[in-house]
Amino acid sequence: MEWYIVGVTAALLTTFGFVPQIIKMYRSKSAKDVSIVTFFQFSAGVLLWALYGIHLRDIIIIAANTVSFMILLVAIALYYRYY
Amino acid sequence: MEWYIVGVTAALLTTFGFVPQIIKMYRSKSAKDVSIVTFFQFSAGVLLWALYGIHLRDIIIIAANTVSFMILLVAIALYYRYY
Repeated sequence: MEWYIVGVTAALLTTFGFVPQIIKMYRSKSAKDVSIVTFFQFSAGVLLWALYGIHLRDIIIIAANTVSFMILLVAIALYYRYY
Repeated sequence: MEWYIVGVTAALLTTFGFVPQIIKMYRSKSAKDVSIVTFFQFSAGVLLWALYGIHLRDIIIIAANTVSFMILLVAIALYYRYY
C-alpha cells in the first residue's frame, strides 16, 4: 500500500479543514454559533507545530501548519466581521 | 530548549481544539452557523493520520488522532441534535 498517499491525504484534509467553515460564515454572513476559542486554540497549536517542524527540519510539517495558520487567520477575521 | 514540550503542547492544543466548539454548542443549544463539513473533513483527516501512525508504529500520532476522532464524534452528535 502507498502509505505516503495516506499521509498526504490526511495532511490535506486537516490542513484545509476549516475552509468549509469559512465558506459557511461567508455565505451566511453569520458566526453566532461558531467558537472563536476553537479558532485561537488551533492557531496556537499549528503555530507550535510549525515551530516544532522547524526544529525537526521537516518541510511538510512546517508547510502544512503554516498554511493551516493562514486559513485560521481568515476564519478569525470573518468571525469578527460577522459576529 | 525542551523541544518535546513544544511538540506535546502543540499536540494537546490541536487534539482538544474542538472542545470549546462543543461547549459552545452545548450551552447555546444551537449549531446553525457551524459547518458540519468541517467536522467530517477533520474526522476523515484524523482517521487517516491515526492509520498513518499505525503504519509508522508511532503511539503519539495514533493516540492524539484517536482522541481527536472521538471528540469530533461528540461534536457531530451535538451538531445533529441542535441544528
